[in-house]
Amino acid sequence: MKTKPTAPWQILDDAEVYSAPPWIKVHRQQIRLPNGRIVGYHQIVLPDYAIIAAQTADGKFVVERQYKHGIGTVSLFLPGGVIDHGEKPQQAAKRELLEETGYKADGWREIGVYVSNSNYGCGRAHVFISRNARKITEPNSGDLEDMEIVLLDAPSLLRAVRSGKFMSLSSVAAALCALNHRS
Amino acid sequence: MKTKPTAPWQILDDAEVYSAPPWIKVHRQQIRLPNGRIVGYHQIVLPDYAIIAAQTADGKFVVERQYKHGIGTVSLFLPGGVIDHGEKPQQAAKRELLEETGYKADGWREIGVYVSNSNYGCGRAHVFISRNARKITEPNSGDLEDMEIVLLDAPSLLRAVRSGKFMSLSSVAAALCALNHRS
Repeated sequence: MKTKPTAPWQILDDAEVYSAPPWIKVHRQQIRLPNGRIVGYHQIVLPDYAIIAAQTADGKFVVERQYKHGIGTVSLFLPGGVIDHGEKPQQAAKRELLEETGYKADGWREIGVYVSNSNYGCGRAHVFISRNARKITEPNSGDLEDMEIVLLDAPSLLRAVRSGKFMSLSSVAAALCALNHRS
Repeated sequence: MKTKPTAPWQILDDAEVYSAPPWIKVHRQQIRLPNGRIVGYHQIVLPDYAIIAAQTADGKFVVERQYKHGIGTVSLFLPGGVIDHGEKPQQAAKRELLEETGYKADGWREIGVYVSNSNYGCGRAHVFISRNARKITEPNSGDLEDMEIVLLDAPSLLRAVRSGKFMSLSSVAAALCALNHRS
């Protein structure tokens, strides 16, 4: 069923209206819709980030329990973080796993790239899987990221997702992508 | 393994630095971390939204194919949209399904609520499942939302997710939540 043609919007004008470098930029755009109507719209530019489903040799996923300010409480998360300027997504994934958990892993593979907000953008999530994760050092992720590390096998990870123990959209998406991945 | 205590951050000051009512507010906060260090941080307030995995009586999911400006191209999406002021999440889910697709459904159930961005907030996704979806009218979602409706059975939905045909984090999360839901 096709209701109307689906066509990209045309950006007539684009102005930065707020910026907190290097983290946040808000743009206000003037848009011409496919039907000719002109509307105002925003784009929110946040850094792209990597999020990692790393499994130990015995199949356990490396999970974090921590406070995150966007959530406002303690929750479970998969490891992850912002891709630095000039860094490749997989480099960021390896760096973040090591910094946050002290784990190193093999067999890295990007299994999806998803836009955080389909209206405003808000950065893209690069979802990675990796295997043979093992602790090689102590975590060193800075004082914004105090956390506990928890190891969950696949059934426990799925149960934790189903029972709402992960409160972040990217962690839930990445956990389910990894659990439903067919290599 | 516990590296350091996980404790909420204390908000010492909070100032709105950009606002485009009723859609976007950006706040700059002064934060005291659990270790006493004081840092600046942002919160981005976007509306909460509903996202819907609705299945027809013969088990097909109601999927949309459309352009979204945050993605910048045409992609598959699950139906969904912003929860209006004063509206309950489930009311919004029913309204958005009807407006966007012309479908009505039964057996509504919220199976998860997830924060879009664990650092900045960016609104919460309320994930709904429903069944017995049937077309009762023509879509009427306004000229920002030209789209096609596609019906996908569960294996096809999973294949579409795995092959990257859904480019939005909330659609991928909601599709996999629905496929992995155990009622």
